[in-house]
Amino acid sequence: MAVLAPTPRTTLKRAPTRGSHEIDTLHRILDLAPIVHVGINVHAQPAIIPTFHLRIGDALYFHGSTANRMFRVLASGEPACVTASLIDGLVLARSAFHHSMNYRSVVIYGTAETVNDATEKAKILTGLIEKLVPGRSKDARAPNETELKRTLLIRFPIVEASAKIRSGGPIDDEEDYESDIWAGVVPLKTVALSPIRDDLLPDSIPQPEYLSRYLKEHQ
Amino acid sequence: MAVLAPTPRTTLKRAPTRGSHEIDTLHRILDLAPIVHVGINVHAQPAIIPTFHLRIGDALYFHGSTANRMFRVLASGEPACVTASLIDGLVLARSAFHHSMNYRSVVIYGTAETVNDATEKAKILTGLIEKLVPGRSKDARAPNETELKRTLLIRFPIVEASAKIRSGGPIDDEEDYESDIWAGVVPLKTVALSPIRDDLLPDSIPQPEYLSRYLKEHQ
Repeated sequence: MAVLAPTPRTTLKRAPTRGSHEIDTLHRILDLAPIVHVGINVHAQPAIIPTFHLRIGDALYFHGSTANRMFRVLASGEPACVTASLIDGLVLARSAFHHSMNYRSVVIYGTAETVNDATEKAKILTGLIEKLVPGRSKDARAPNETELKRTLLIRFPIVEASAKIRSGGPIDDEEDYESDIWAGVVPLKTVALSPIRDDLLPDSIPQPEYLSRYLKEHQ
Repeated sequence: MAVLAPTPRTTLKRAPTRGSHEIDTLHRILDLAPIVHVGINVHAQPAIIPTFHLRIGDALYFHGSTANRMFRVLASGEPACVTASLIDGLVLARSAFHHSMNYRSVVIYGTAETVNDATEKAKILTGLIEKLVPGRSKDARAPNETELKRTLLIRFPIVEASAKIRSGGPIDDEEDYESDIWAGVVPLKTVALSPIRDDLLPDSIPQPEYLSRYLKEHQ
């Protein structure tokens, strides 16, 4: 089991049994999360950027417009925090106090850098499209030179990171188990609905097979 | 249409048509979001706390353990940023460059304070349980005095805030409309699955009606 070395800020102080530094666990949560939230300071004021991401190896990649001032601050190497959060269910305990959510989350501390190499950039942008819907990058028109220049691509290392996971049923106080209050978990799941074709798409263009596969896997 | 006054940091610099300061819009997004992400500095390092929230009027409420150091920093009045993000769909444009997501997000800047009044605290904690599953607070055992004391309740004002919304289909470059690449939107939705009863729950206790209603509304 490969793990990252815990640091003071990635060591869980409370409920340490819910924490993990296992690399596979961290990667799985980061890969499943549709977006991450990036925290940085802009003029000494905390700001949060929700953004689409891709993990390759031990780094996350974000892309945005070169005109995005928050991304420019992030790319300048300001200390940042990246969080991925998956909500898996509502935990209904017998006592209000023990109500909770089942979740999987990751927090990463570090600093970002820009990816400037044109070949690497094009490859990672392809990967971002593939993460959205696998198979899509072979269909969509690839970025041209101008589009590549207008895209800021950022790399964020997964070195100082920890996961926190809550799963399973409610944990109530001894005396509350005698009550007749319903208790259990309501699982939550994000699903894809039937696609809405672009109004300007000719009827002759069928729904691609990779999209049908994506929909089947996200029912 | 009631709006919040924009400030330099809540004025959208790019794509201003996607921005809103309309109070109803802000409240609706905050009410629909299952959780928010709170950004603060802990020892000058940005940190993000994903947390369950409730909106009442023009304030958000969060609760956590009095032992949670991040919540204690937040409650001390450190400058904070709160973000709610709803992902509504994947936008598949003809060009890779114009791929996007449909989303609704809110960002709020401000400082938090603690709610100490016992009556107000009990009322808001009831509201938090009601937000999880409407009807649940009348069933679950209410918090006792010890539990109330161990709960830190935080109020965060919704005064300096803005929303950002992307909806609708892809917007491609003129020349790409000639291509035969499929384009459209894949709507995403979070649904509730069949509840998992607590192992220790006697078979004689039926699924409550409010839970069946919740499941029906979140299919």
